[in-house]
Amino acid sequence: MRISVVAPRAKVKPVTERRTYSYLGPAGTFTEAALDQVAEARGQTWRPVHNVGEALADVLEGRSDAAMIAIENSIEGGVSTTQDALATLPGLRIIGEYLVRVNFVLVAPRGTTLDQVEVIAAHPVAYAQCHGWLGEHLPSHSHVPASSNVASAIGVLDGTLAAQAAIAAPGIVSHYDVDVLAEGIGDNAQAVTRFVLVTRTTRSPEPTGADKTSLIVELPHDHPGSLLEMLEQFSTRGINLSLIESRPIGDELGRYRFVIDADGHIEHERMADALLGIRRFSPRVVFLGSYPRADRQIVQYPDRYSDDVFVEARDWLRGILSGEPEV
Amino acid sequence: MRISVVAPRAKVKPVTERRTYSYLGPAGTFTEAALDQVAEARGQTWRPVHNVGEALADVLEGRSDAAMIAIENSIEGGVSTTQDALATLPGLRIIGEYLVRVNFVLVAPRGTTLDQVEVIAAHPVAYAQCHGWLGEHLPSHSHVPASSNVASAIGVLDGTLAAQAAIAAPGIVSHYDVDVLAEGIGDNAQAVTRFVLVTRTTRSPEPTGADKTSLIVELPHDHPGSLLEMLEQFSTRGINLSLIESRPIGDELGRYRFVIDADGHIEHERMADALLGIRRFSPRVVFLGSYPRADRQIVQYPDRYSDDVFVEARDWLRGILSGEPEV
Amino acid sequence: MRISVVAPRAKVKPVTERRTYSYLGPAGTFTEAALDQVAEARGQTWRPVHNVGEALADVLEGRSDAAMIAIENSIEGGVSTTQDALATLPGLRIIGEYLVRVNFVLVAPRGTTLDQVEVIAAHPVAYAQCHGWLGEHLPSHSHVPASSNVASAIGVLDGTLAAQAAIAAPGIVSHYDVDVLAEGIGDNAQAVTRFVLVTRTTRSPEPTGADKTSLIVELPHDHPGSLLEMLEQFSTRGINLSLIESRPIGDELGRYRFVIDADGHIEHERMADALLGIRRFSPRVVFLGSYPRADRQIVQYPDRYSDDVFVEARDWLRGILSGEPEV
Amino acid sequence: MRISVVAPRAKVKPVTERRTYSYLGPAGTFTEAALDQVAEARGQTWRPVHNVGEALADVLEGRSDAAMIAIENSIEGGVSTTQDALATLPGLRIIGEYLVRVNFVLVAPRGTTLDQVEVIAAHPVAYAQCHGWLGEHLPSHSHVPASSNVASAIGVLDGTLAAQAAIAAPGIVSHYDVDVLAEGIGDNAQAVTRFVLVTRTTRSPEPTGADKTSLIVELPHDHPGSLLEMLEQFSTRGINLSLIESRPIGDELGRYRFVIDADGHIEHERMADALLGIRRFSPRVVFLGSYPRADRQIVQYPDRYSDDVFVEARDWLRGILSGEPEV
Repeated sequence: MRISVVAPRAKVKPVTERRTYSYLGPAGTFTEAALDQVAEARGQTWRPVHNVGEALADVLEGRSDAAMIAIENSIEGGVSTTQDALATLPGLRIIGEYLVRVNFVLVAPRGTTLDQVEVIAAHPVAYAQCHGWLGEHLPSHSHVPASSNVASAIGVLDGTLAAQAAIAAPGIVSHYDVDVLAEGIGDNAQAVTRFVLVTRTTRSPEPTGADKTSLIVELPHDHPGSLLEMLEQFSTRGINLSLIESRPIGDELGRYRFVIDADGHIEHERMADALLGIRRFSPRVVFLGSYPRADRQIVQYPDRYSDDVFVEARDWLRGILSGEPEV
Repeated sequence: MRISVVAPRAKVKPVTERRTYSYLGPAGTFTEAALDQVAEARGQTWRPVHNVGEALADVLEGRSDAAMIAIENSIEGGVSTTQDALATLPGLRIIGEYLVRVNFVLVAPRGTTLDQVEVIAAHPVAYAQCHGWLGEHLPSHSHVPASSNVASAIGVLDGTLAAQAAIAAPGIVSHYDVDVLAEGIGDNAQAVTRFVLVTRTTRSPEPTGADKTSLIVELPHDHPGSLLEMLEQFSTRGINLSLIESRPIGDELGRYRFVIDADGHIEHERMADALLGIRRFSPRVVFLGSYPRADRQIVQYPDRYSDDVFVEARDWLRGILSGEPEV
Repeated sequence: MRISVVAPRAKVKPVTERRTYSYLGPAGTFTEAALDQVAEARGQTWRPVHNVGEALADVLEGRSDAAMIAIENSIEGGVSTTQDALATLPGLRIIGEYLVRVNFVLVAPRGTTLDQVEVIAAHPVAYAQCHGWLGEHLPSHSHVPASSNVASAIGVLDGTLAAQAAIAAPGIVSHYDVDVLAEGIGDNAQAVTRFVLVTRTTRSPEPTGADKTSLIVELPHDHPGSLLEMLEQFSTRGINLSLIESRPIGDELGRYRFVIDADGHIEHERMADALLGIRRFSPRVVFLGSYPRADRQIVQYPDRYSDDVFVEARDWLRGILSGEPEV
Repeated sequence: MRISVVAPRAKVKPVTERRTYSYLGPAGTFTEAALDQVAEARGQTWRPVHNVGEALADVLEGRSDAAMIAIENSIEGGVSTTQDALATLPGLRIIGEYLVRVNFVLVAPRGTTLDQVEVIAAHPVAYAQCHGWLGEHLPSHSHVPASSNVASAIGVLDGTLAAQAAIAAPGIVSHYDVDVLAEGIGDNAQAVTRFVLVTRTTRSPEPTGADKTSLIVELPHDHPGSLLEMLEQFSTRGINLSLIESRPIGDELGRYRFVIDADGHIEHERMADALLGIRRFSPRVVFLGSYPRADRQIVQYPDRYSDDVFVEARDWLRGILSGEPEV
């Protein structure tokens, strides 16, 4: 698919202009830690918001140039709010990916000791991930849900949550005056959350060789085997999938859309061809973006799927159609 | 796969003995509405518990004969806690499936009017499903999370949650003295939650022709295309899948197990053969059960996948192996 | 694959010029009966040749404008000489297909009676197809091979073959002075031979909706499952195959090329896309031509593989690559 | 597929009894060279016959204990007479495979010189394989067809064929008094013909690890994609195919049966399971036999397809069906 492209590459804005980044705040969240990895966001305006919907609305309505949002957690799986928002809101594009190691601390107002803790404030997901530690060290505690990993601590500090301690992200200590009662209380030390940086629709950043393409695909419901057929669009072009998650479309039981991360960039022939195949058979495809992988690992693929092979085949076909003798 | 089976069929217990059923309580939840559909549970002991883990522990440790648990929601997708518990706890078997239409009411202490409501208590999932109605009728409200669709109302009634109204299941009015400020406030009137009745490992209930088989399958991670290969085990035996959901295994990003509902019963030859195929290639398969579908819809399949065809093929192979002339 | 094509469509030559057609002669063969079906060949020069190689050489070296050659027989299968010639000789294109019902007569010099027949002259293929009749009516005969279905009769007439009767094509009676001892002696009354009309490389005739595309494909030998992969190139674009035959490449046992007839025309998007897929993975593809089917049966295919769907998908991809907002 | 088998293994007959072997004669053919490789045939009765049909009839009707027949040629492909005979005659089994290097000599009556040769007698297949040499050394020769590679020489010697020289198999010189005008005149020095030893239906010889299984499979004609489906039965069990040839069934154009050689033995679980799959979907399967490969090359396959894996899966399924707790 050779096309003449003149639009500028994805970048948030010329460096000379001031830029705004929305993120799930307040200061101290894992999302802030992800935004902290974005070199060109340093020194710019960081705009804390309350949820993913607000962050994406900021981008779509022009209040922000980009939004950092969590999309997948190695323990809990896909962040369904994010996946559903990206599936239904047109006009967005992912331009980067960032990984944050997820761990938790137990914090409390200055002077609190562990044996004083009876009730713990925590976001439900964080609470679930600390189940082992809590069972061992605070077996008789009870739980008050909080709306974020920072709101838990704030609620304990200002008394709006009836708890003596809070589960929070480690970054909390930079922003709030708390005692850390315990560190590393997450059950899985390898837990990682994947964040993506989202802008309005734009050209994808240039291929780096270590790229990822994200899409959301609805399956046609009138013929069985359509999931198999979708997967074959990738496998027959030598493309590996690093993520495939189903999400209910929501209109009835048994209807799904699939969230997919595929190795490679849409400007690679094999990926462009796979997307054409997907588009032809799916009633709805959302292209979320091609962007550099957080781990910068070069994508390997068999030679037979290289760009040259695709170009050569097109030349061959053109010759046949024109009726000119083969050479 | 002809085997001599002497164990009795799955049933919770001889009808002459008293039985105990665990469910997510308290009275008034959607889970209670599901249990209400189980004819043989009427007049038996119903044991309310706080979460899925507790319900399954009751069964495994003998405190209950069966547990009713939510497994999938038409809006939110698979209930990940349930899926993960079934994936990791050995010794359980699903013996029945029940559907409950999910809708919500807004309730408050007697005498409250809608214009007095500033803060709403709600379980986060319920809150998300009423987003549309709330935006229209109470645009400036704020949200306090509660741990269940009943706990929200209790917290408002007893003052432990700082809210004027609660989102609850319609059944709440049979158990608590509340005013209903609004009914049918869920965004999707078709929303349904699927529940399953779980016992200790037992023989599956007899095939009815309208059956479903549930499993959880881990994919081998050493060869690509393994999802395709798993799906082919079903498609090459004419078996349709009504559910396929991925769940992270949790040890690292990119490793999944798949929760699958397949049309048919393990005592059908085609399903038994598909399970053999799955078992041979998967590092871990959990058979959750074969049981009648809630919708009682007879499973259709091509004649070529009928039991007779499997039996005939085995006879043919046996003849070849023995070296006897074909007839 | 939209390309600007200016070359004229395949036709043998402007009707005002005299044309020459090579065919397996002499007069009276089934090949002559096939050529007789070509309207625009009437009144032109018909050039009888001795074998397929000679016919194709006539075309390649300019002695003829086209050649009619047998490519498949419903009893005997592909004509391997033809298939191998088309696989290895560059510069040819099939532009039409013709079917001839194959039946045989037993002929002899004037005055011969059946009970005088002890030895029968016949081309080996014809001989094999009359096995049943001969076993019944002339059980003690013996066989002398002849090089064609006409040469058998000529040899009997001029005495160069030591036989009293010959198996020949029914057309023999128009050209030679023989008695017909028996008619319809072929074992299968439905037997049909497929012929193709071959020219030098040219643009294919215009699509008619009832078209066929012929190719010869070598499989890569370095990866197993490549036959499966080739077949998928067609099946995933809704293309049915009416012929698939393997032929040894000839360099070692176990290496094959496949002769394929696919329903549809190379100027259909789905066929062009399938050919691109084949070309990318095969070490060698020979496009033999797209041409109207002899039976004029319109090719049916699902709407999802129509040209419009392919064009729309390319437009969609172009939009994504350019970074313009979707509409 | 564990079955109790008591019939004795395939062997032609107890060594103490005299055995008869049919083969395409007369002495001096390539078939005789193949039979010469069979250790236990030495010193037994060798019965020359005129064609494959006669050889197989000898076996079926008890005149011979076994027949050696050509089944595939590396240049010409499958021997269609053999393939069609095996496809339609019940009661036969292949028990061994033998390879014979195919080369040709040009022979003539004593005293003949090459420059005296104007007409050459040759079986058409042999003639086709010497095309290159003849074009170079005897460009103006003509051809008289003979019915075998020995009959050509006999006809020249006894004058029944009007030719000065004959193309024959090298073994001719042991049996006839001829001058060899040229040796090694075949165009391809690597040409090989594959022969099989056929008996009445019997148990297959014991697996050796270097085995081959031959079958003939008809495809159902009521659903497209059935060739793909057949191939998947092998690929999903890790079985490689060394031969796949299509043959017209003969009733109408476009209907095929497939001749298949698969690596492995029917007493291997993966092969037995693949055959079950094939049998279930094919309207007609002919099992021709499992027997040691001529090249004695051990069949490699992934561990995941080993017998143990199949046995373990069956045990697992049995446990599930019985309802016993997993261990």
